[in-house]
Amino acid sequence: MKIVCSKSELLKGLNIASKAVPNKTTMDTLECIIFDCNEGMIKLIANDMDLGIETIIPGTIYEKGVIAIDSSIIINIVRSFPDSDITIDCDYDYKTVISCENSMFNIVAKNTDSFTYLPKYEKSNPIIISKITLKDAIRKTIFSINEKDSNKVMSGELFEITGNNLRVVALDGHRISINNIKLNALYEDKSIIIPGRTLNELTKIIDNEEGDLFIYICDKHIIFEYDDTTVVSRLIEGKYFDINKMLTDNYDTKITINKKSLIDSINRGLLLINDGNKKPIIMKVNEENIEIGLNSPLGSLNDVIDISREGINQIIGFNPKFMVDALRVIDDEEINIYLMNAKSPAFIRDEENTYIYLVLPVNFNSI
Amino acid sequence: MKIVCSKSELLKGLNIASKAVPNKTTMDTLECIIFDCNEGMIKLIANDMDLGIETIIPGTIYEKGVIAIDSSIIINIVRSFPDSDITIDCDYDYKTVISCENSMFNIVAKNTDSFTYLPKYEKSNPIIISKITLKDAIRKTIFSINEKDSNKVMSGELFEITGNNLRVVALDGHRISINNIKLNALYEDKSIIIPGRTLNELTKIIDNEEGDLFIYICDKHIIFEYDDTTVVSRLIEGKYFDINKMLTDNYDTKITINKKSLIDSINRGLLLINDGNKKPIIMKVNEENIEIGLNSPLGSLNDVIDISREGINQIIGFNPKFMVDALRVIDDEEINIYLMNAKSPAFIRDEENTYIYLVLPVNFNSI
Repeated sequence: MKIVCSKSELLKGLNIASKAVPNKTTMDTLECIIFDCNEGMIKLIANDMDLGIETIIPGTIYEKGVIAIDSSIIINIVRSFPDSDITIDCDYDYKTVISCENSMFNIVAKNTDSFTYLPKYEKSNPIIISKITLKDAIRKTIFSINEKDSNKVMSGELFEITGNNLRVVALDGHRISINNIKLNALYEDKSIIIPGRTLNELTKIIDNEEGDLFIYICDKHIIFEYDDTTVVSRLIEGKYFDINKMLTDNYDTKITINKKSLIDSINRGLLLINDGNKKPIIMKVNEENIEIGLNSPLGSLNDVIDISREGINQIIGFNPKFMVDALRVIDDEEINIYLMNAKSPAFIRDEENTYIYLVLPVNFNSI
Repeated sequence: MKIVCSKSELLKGLNIASKAVPNKTTMDTLECIIFDCNEGMIKLIANDMDLGIETIIPGTIYEKGVIAIDSSIIINIVRSFPDSDITIDCDYDYKTVISCENSMFNIVAKNTDSFTYLPKYEKSNPIIISKITLKDAIRKTIFSINEKDSNKVMSGELFEITGNNLRVVALDGHRISINNIKLNALYEDKSIIIPGRTLNELTKIIDNEEGDLFIYICDKHIIFEYDDTTVVSRLIEGKYFDINKMLTDNYDTKITINKKSLIDSINRGLLLINDGNKKPIIMKVNEENIEIGLNSPLGSLNDVIDISREGINQIIGFNPKFMVDALRVIDDEEINIYLMNAKSPAFIRDEENTYIYLVLPVNFNSI
């Protein structure tokens, strides 16, 4: 195999494919990126069975072939070269010369005998969505999954398609994060659970350029296609929680507050928390302001923030981290928080329900 | 004690004083920064006996007093506040309110009974040097000290004053790094060894503004004074190595080479080195170029870089890390390397000997 491609395109492709290389593995081939140049194009592929990524990069093929190269070695080598054309030349016994201008590495590549290619599916009826919109919806919910929970469905996100609405849902035992996306067409109703790892890696490889992404939902897999990249992931099997019964539009108190002031205040409270003491942040809602308090063995915090309020006064406690997690992914400067009482969840949501964050309260009297 | 100062000045002062707070200590008071407001100014002090720092910050004293506050807590609290005036108000039993705008922390400060103030010395005949020049000379040599060596003098830098020349020297068993600074006056000849930690912290707290720094050399201490900050450090006792007999102006080969090309090439070689294999970088000096090579179980590198050369051809091996350490602190784009033979050290130096880096070669045949 002999190919020539530009450093920038090669590095971009390697960075994309490498996201399907597992961090720890005992199988040599899984640590590799496959260069498949047998079909007239340069394909970079990695696949660990749960997640597979294939991306095509521009370049010239002087000699066909398929080889596997250790992912971190090839990425480091390519990164170390000047911004110029790079030649990868592998002979019949996998001795490989990687060269650029006056610099040349000799390494040994591997055969691909034990490599499993991405599963092939009949693809039809894609769901079409803007790359940036999808990336944004994942980023704004993914922090709420619980990857370590024994209940597998909590380690993934629910993608629920109803007509022209895609609802992205993540939850653990203490909170629910929801983003609703309006699609450009009507689709068949579907409900699938996608592994958190897949979605995390997807947000890393999707660039910030305008463009569409195509989603194909298959039997046990989901396929994301955009530009020259294909991502195939296993789906999580099982039944997701019935979140609709946890959602409500009722409230006794509606607060409108500057998001940054609230984040800054809760972050101050977090300074008084360490591994040994988990204390709630107490919010005392008055007519024109909210008092934010936290007591810990290290000291106490008392902040006052102006708000506008509908409804009644409240005193309610929260895990400060869960509050901050939700607040910091919201783009709005002013946010609305809806409360019922000290034992009911708080809802942070915009008027259109583009985003809904449910955070369970903490019983602060018993702590 | 009650004081008011601006967030920016308080944070700047805390960051300076905190450099004398040891990372690990069993003594509570050592983890603290002292606020000493008994003498009409706000002094922030930290001292762990080896290194002491005192800095004066602008602000208003409403009530005199001296208290100690945990360094990381007070820094985090001050950092978390908006950019405004901060009030620190400590009552007779050390209950302390730290407030800024609508935000208020309550913590407990400590008394300073077990705190040791900086030693007082009669100061005379300071050595005057530009802050930036001193910081630069330390940065360009300090990487060569060996803090873990059982020989204490290797964990510090030699400051050697001869007439109007300050020579700053750092070395371990494999290399020597020297910077020569021209002073603006003639001083008494002196030779002292300053702990590496002191110099490292000094480079962190000296800002990049023009200005003079005053050095007082006392019996067992050195005092650095600049702006409103005083740094007192113990000196290392013992006799430094006689480095003059290791230095020579003779050479058989002089190479002039682009520094960045050489760094890039050696860094590529470092990609093939891991904990399990320490391989030398081999330099083959030809008439018009230098071949850079490295062989390891992971693969091999062969680079060619154009040079201009005086003298004879050479083949010589080096620890790539030691070469890169020296190269990356040199500001010159083109550098000169002087070689004698494969068993003699290489010298990297400019014509004026502003900097001299000696790197011992590695016997690459035996590896």
